[in-house]
Amino acid sequence: MKTIKIDVEFEDLDAGGVVYHPNYIKLCERARNRWLSEFGITFSGLKSDDVALAIRSIKADYLRPVVHDAVNIKMSILNQTEKSFSVLHQIYPISSQNKAPHFTAEITLVAANFSTGKSCPLPITVTAFLSQQQKEGVS
Amino acid sequence: MKTIKIDVEFEDLDAGGVVYHPNYIKLCERARNRWLSEFGITFSGLKSDDVALAIRSIKADYLRPVVHDAVNIKMSILNQTEKSFSVLHQIYPISSQNKAPHFTAEITLVAANFSTGKSCPLPITVTAFLSQQQKEGVS
Amino acid sequence: MKTIKIDVEFEDLDAGGVVYHPNYIKLCERARNRWLSEFGITFSGLKSDDVALAIRSIKADYLRPVVHDAVNIKMSILNQTEKSFSVLHQIYPISSQNKAPHFTAEITLVAANFSTGKSCPLPITVTAFLSQQQKEGVS
Amino acid sequence: MKTIKIDVEFEDLDAGGVVYHPNYIKLCERARNRWLSEFGITFSGLKSDDVALAIRSIKADYLRPVVHDAVNIKMSILNQTEKSFSVLHQIYPISSQNKAPHFTAEITLVAANFSTGKSCPLPITVTAFLSQQQKEGVS
Repeated sequence: MKTIKIDVEFEDLDAGGVVYHPNYIKLCERARNRWLSEFGITFSGLKSDDVALAIRSIKADYLRPVVHDAVNIKMSILNQTEKSFSVLHQIYPISSQNKAPHFTAEITLVAANFSTGKSCPLPITVTAFLSQQQKEGVS
Repeated sequence: MKTIKIDVEFEDLDAGGVVYHPNYIKLCERARNRWLSEFGITFSGLKSDDVALAIRSIKADYLRPVVHDAVNIKMSILNQTEKSFSVLHQIYPISSQNKAPHFTAEITLVAANFSTGKSCPLPITVTAFLSQQQKEGVS
Repeated sequence: MKTIKIDVEFEDLDAGGVVYHPNYIKLCERARNRWLSEFGITFSGLKSDDVALAIRSIKADYLRPVVHDAVNIKMSILNQTEKSFSVLHQIYPISSQNKAPHFTAEITLVAANFSTGKSCPLPITVTAFLSQQQKEGVS
Repeated sequence: MKTIKIDVEFEDLDAGGVVYHPNYIKLCERARNRWLSEFGITFSGLKSDDVALAIRSIKADYLRPVVHDAVNIKMSILNQTEKSFSVLHQIYPISSQNKAPHFTAEITLVAANFSTGKSCPLPITVTAFLSQQQKEGVS
């Protein structure tokens, strides 16, 4: 499990004054990319090995709106196959009184060959990252 | 059921050269907004009645990437409650050889009071729209 | 000179209810890309020749806000060098009472080698496009 | 003068693998908003006084592309009138060998009444901010 603080930018808001609904997915990616990059897993690094982590599915629940505020995004690994893994993202606005998340998303990523687009086994950097998360989850 | 053609813009692409994953949700909204506006249902119209249609949940499947191309987005109503309704969106790139959609998303919208944010019954313009869709679906 | 109609999307608005300021540049690009693609000039086509049209400079004036409305974008070629050309963009909301544009931008594009990033002469497809515009402007 | 570090996000890139050209303007705004918010100047705070800081003009030069990297954005006040002020933004990628900026933009902001959209004198919070910058510039 990992929590990363992300600033909601003015550009993330919509005409209703809250975060525009596709941008919650962007907030999740900003946090997930920071988490993965701490383990050396980056778009350009993977690309140099002709691999990409593509989004396979998203299940998102919009529970309460998020306004122009910093948010804590809690992430944990839900499950893992040879070619994919799922991450649960929960968004907690810093200034919110609510202890419940305002947004949750289960996002499944799949490894794919960058050139052909075909799915492939997760790179070793990613399986090492997932193993470490599993250990931390158990302990 | 309704099909609306949407142009994928250069700005919708990511560094991998395909549509950036949150932007599939934007493509769906562009199509859905055009559909709803044909029935006079718009953000500003609803707002003048102190109502908004907020996103409640999204279940999205990324089946094949979408590139810089126009797409047909097929939409149909999945179900309806007093305060909410769900729309199935299926994205078919114009130039694709595949007959299967490249992306599908079930998106649930809920009516909410604009000022308070609390859920409320669907406005009559929306229930009229949904009734008409149901009739067309049956016939 | 060319006029292209572009739909302002809900996603283009900011929390003030008007088009978010960097998005006026996006509206211009949507129109310019449609114009250029009529002459077969596209990002992917240029890339297959290892060329890109990169933005070199922008001078933009925000005269009146643009709201959620379709707009006409008038474009004309301002000048041209061996490696670059400039386009004047003027945005006129469809529903506006004003005869003056709400936004103008002079945008200079430069040809660059895609792999090295170095500037290079404009591709022949682009010089042919510019010649035709010049003829139309004179006649 | 102020320097603020901003993370370039994956979402900021275009299909060429560099920052999408309108997004340089977004990077500038992210930095400028952080700077202004240190002085209590925020969109929502101004809005509660029925004021907004609107963009009046942008002069931007794209000198070298910015890739997926953190950047330092140097900002300084260029000039000031009763109703407006201009900020020079210079973007320096953290990992760049170049001592010259990769992007510069002179952006002029004007105070406007939020309800009517008419220009108005700069709020006292903003003039106080500008005075302090002037003092620091002199000393």
